[in-house]
Amino acid sequence: MTDHRSGWIVTGHSEPYAVGRLMVHRDEVVTPDGLDRSYVWVAARDQVRVAALVEGKLVFVEQDHYLIGRTLQLPGGTLNERESPEEAGRRELSEETGLHGGVWQSLGHLCPLPGLTPLGVHLFLAIDAVTGPVVLEPGEGDIAVHRLPPLEAIEAIRAGRIACAASVALVYAALAQP
Amino acid sequence: MTDHRSGWIVTGHSEPYAVGRLMVHRDEVVTPDGLDRSYVWVAARDQVRVAALVEGKLVFVEQDHYLIGRTLQLPGGTLNERESPEEAGRRELSEETGLHGGVWQSLGHLCPLPGLTPLGVHLFLAIDAVTGPVVLEPGEGDIAVHRLPPLEAIEAIRAGRIACAASVALVYAALAQP
Repeated sequence: MTDHRSGWIVTGHSEPYAVGRLMVHRDEVVTPDGLDRSYVWVAARDQVRVAALVEGKLVFVEQDHYLIGRTLQLPGGTLNERESPEEAGRRELSEETGLHGGVWQSLGHLCPLPGLTPLGVHLFLAIDAVTGPVVLEPGEGDIAVHRLPPLEAIEAIRAGRIACAASVALVYAALAQP
Repeated sequence: MTDHRSGWIVTGHSEPYAVGRLMVHRDEVVTPDGLDRSYVWVAARDQVRVAALVEGKLVFVEQDHYLIGRTLQLPGGTLNERESPEEAGRRELSEETGLHGGVWQSLGHLCPLPGLTPLGVHLFLAIDAVTGPVVLEPGEGDIAVHRLPPLEAIEAIRAGRIACAASVALVYAALAQP
């Protein structure tokens, strides 16, 4: 069988490990330049990040991450089953910051680690969402919400305070919107 | 034992799957707000991306990726053993594009998927590298090199032609350098 991606041929497949949120796949492939390889990769659900601009300030969440320690991110998270990217973005923004409503616009999607996983992070710009109650998911009780003016957001990126690659890309993309 | 990251307590650990380039870890943890959880995550080597500005244009590589299809990226790849991020960046830039030398500057590092893996992508700006021979790694015979003026690079991001999150963040960061 020939894979749908141009140039790659898939000759075998196994799933050596799976747990709730991820599955490890091992494919036997022939590369576009003719080499036999085992390609091990990880499947996991798509994610979403939201650049919420409220009164001209960008909304960030700060949290202790198990793997990388304390960092700022734009609000977001993993899509639930049968949830569209925008539905997930609205849910996550509301849960983490209490903000809801506003004018939403897709800014496309990115692949954080295209050699390791095909998972995408969907990006949204939300203008003038309004304040409501914060309803954190279990395990997110340590979230702090910050509102940064654009220049302070860029300074936070330069100082290494925003580790999340999709958040950094989205901050720049949101501030570069015409 | 208490983990070094503030707030998280680790009570158990196993490594349910490992292959050459990745290892799956499963930790039993107590979250900062007191919940017992199994935290499954992936360890893999750090990566590097390079924004090479040559005669005012940004250098991109275009390639058929097994997992996400054809896309533009900034040159880069995975660190070899005992290789510093800058050494890896110089090696990858040279292998993929033939460019070497120039004035190099670190622009920090990002975490592409901070909830799934702690791996970092180290970012560099390389000004005025000079042309030499291209020596592709096995499996990279389909690489095409493009030089885009800054406005075309931003247009390529907006058109969704640059899927790689670290590449997008680094394009904006490089063009925003004072």
